[in-house]
Amino acid sequence: MITYQPNILVFSPEQAEAYAECIRDHGFTSVKAAATQEEAEKYLPSTEVILGWNFPTKLLNKPIASSVRWFQSIGAGVDDLIADNLIPENITLTRIVNQFGSYISEYVFTFLLYILKDVPRMKQSQMERQWDPFISESLAGKTIGVAGLGSIGAEIVRKARAFEMNVHGLSFSAKQAHLVDCHFTPDEWGEFVKDLDYLVLTLPLTDATHHIINRDILLAMKPKACLINVGRGALIDEGDLIPVMQSGHLLAAILDVFEKEPLPKDHVFWSMLNVYVTSHLSGPSTTDGVSRFFVENLKRFLHEQPLHGLVDRKRGY
Amino acid sequence: MITYQPNILVFSPEQAEAYAECIRDHGFTSVKAAATQEEAEKYLPSTEVILGWNFPTKLLNKPIASSVRWFQSIGAGVDDLIADNLIPENITLTRIVNQFGSYISEYVFTFLLYILKDVPRMKQSQMERQWDPFISESLAGKTIGVAGLGSIGAEIVRKARAFEMNVHGLSFSAKQAHLVDCHFTPDEWGEFVKDLDYLVLTLPLTDATHHIINRDILLAMKPKACLINVGRGALIDEGDLIPVMQSGHLLAAILDVFEKEPLPKDHVFWSMLNVYVTSHLSGPSTTDGVSRFFVENLKRFLHEQPLHGLVDRKRGY
Repeated sequence: MITYQPNILVFSPEQAEAYAECIRDHGFTSVKAAATQEEAEKYLPSTEVILGWNFPTKLLNKPIASSVRWFQSIGAGVDDLIADNLIPENITLTRIVNQFGSYISEYVFTFLLYILKDVPRMKQSQMERQWDPFISESLAGKTIGVAGLGSIGAEIVRKARAFEMNVHGLSFSAKQAHLVDCHFTPDEWGEFVKDLDYLVLTLPLTDATHHIINRDILLAMKPKACLINVGRGALIDEGDLIPVMQSGHLLAAILDVFEKEPLPKDHVFWSMLNVYVTSHLSGPSTTDGVSRFFVENLKRFLHEQPLHGLVDRKRGY
Repeated sequence: MITYQPNILVFSPEQAEAYAECIRDHGFTSVKAAATQEEAEKYLPSTEVILGWNFPTKLLNKPIASSVRWFQSIGAGVDDLIADNLIPENITLTRIVNQFGSYISEYVFTFLLYILKDVPRMKQSQMERQWDPFISESLAGKTIGVAGLGSIGAEIVRKARAFEMNVHGLSFSAKQAHLVDCHFTPDEWGEFVKDLDYLVLTLPLTDATHHIINRDILLAMKPKACLINVGRGALIDEGDLIPVMQSGHLLAAILDVFEKEPLPKDHVFWSMLNVYVTSHLSGPSTTDGVSRFFVENLKRFLHEQPLHGLVDRKRGY
């Protein structure tokens, strides 16, 4: 039984009503759904809590938003929300955490195994009715480096352990250094990448991580290593990555995120054989998962407990 | 320092000398390599130990083989060696164990993820330069059933745990029942399969398991479940599987082993879209892995300790 009912506004161009339904199912009765700026303007005056995706943040600086106390973003990355400086300081900002680890780590291992086991050769053999018992390699004993050891990175580490891999990690806080065999700090990128068979980026995009993967770092990687980016596109200097991939120095780049999304139709990545392009789908915000996270946070909000995924705007995530 | 040097014969049509070299590298000096029956006949008279793959077993009944005391098979399955009844009872028979778990479990998860995450759709989108952020499912919460809980099955279970799956198991001995959430015995096949999203066969081929997967079991499986066979081809009645796959009852059959290998060129499996044919490659006998296993067993043999992978011919594996 929920006694106090905060006024909640759900904003999402496509999924607003679906989220709202889920939240109402958990006993919250004052839940409005908005898919456009006009609808948002209509409901904002009494709104205390926003669950938002692609929200028109400029509205938050207007008097109609004066009762908003908390903005829960639908997503793990909040670089855009922090960068636009349009969310007043007195509004608490939270992001989704602990929701994408399973999905994103599955995405990572899908491609690691697809490439290592050479599924294309197996498919080709079947098409040609060719009995072809070739020997592929094993992940066991290979070294994976996970840059970013938040909830997503930690889940990749956990699965890498099950595959008997050596696990290295780089993180800014070093709080989770105990998870990995070797931990590196941001001044040790060159040392970190030089022994890796796989480098996975799960870092948030901040001033300190923008274009952190440049030509020098890419060339410091082992020949025939693989790069996987499930963080943010601008972690990588794409202008530097293109010639490195063209040179064949790396075996593969698996990219789910890009400096510009959707990736422009004429981008060279689409047609490169050693670049695997996917459409920012590795960590989908499922209605169910997001709603459960939000409802749990709502209860904490009502009981004045610390919220999950609280954003530190100075830190950048 | 190895003081007593047993006379070892390595037999393999293609890899004999490679195995022999590896074994000599471990300090054993009396190691002969044979690739043909003639060569085997030449070396057999003084041979005490055989490491063999596709060995002409009829030789073992002849007087020239009277000093042979132990036959180590290169491979996990020994159904053929037991069935031919040509290996005298006084020759100890061992098989490879604990060597294929990593490889075979990687093979299993390669295909589970390839299908679940819909890699073909991702590849297609890239080819068409189409931004297509579709939502795929997660292995987390799905149920996998592992039939056979030996070293291979146990490794599949371990990885399934890392993917947060529910894990059911069926085994004959129930010795490893503690590994799984629900354990079933061979009189409970119907109960075992009915709740599974994935059924993985790792059983040895014996009288008790021949054609154990027949029409009734296949139809007892959940619609849109997946069947994976990395055990032996004849665990499945292929004549029953064909119409079930044609009907679309199951989402996919992933088959690495077949009743007849190589799979005949005109077999219908090659051309079925929901059947994934691979060429008995999921658990490769690598020279290095087999040699290490054999050398460890050789030391146990010399110290009269129990051998790893000892075959119980009555049990059938």
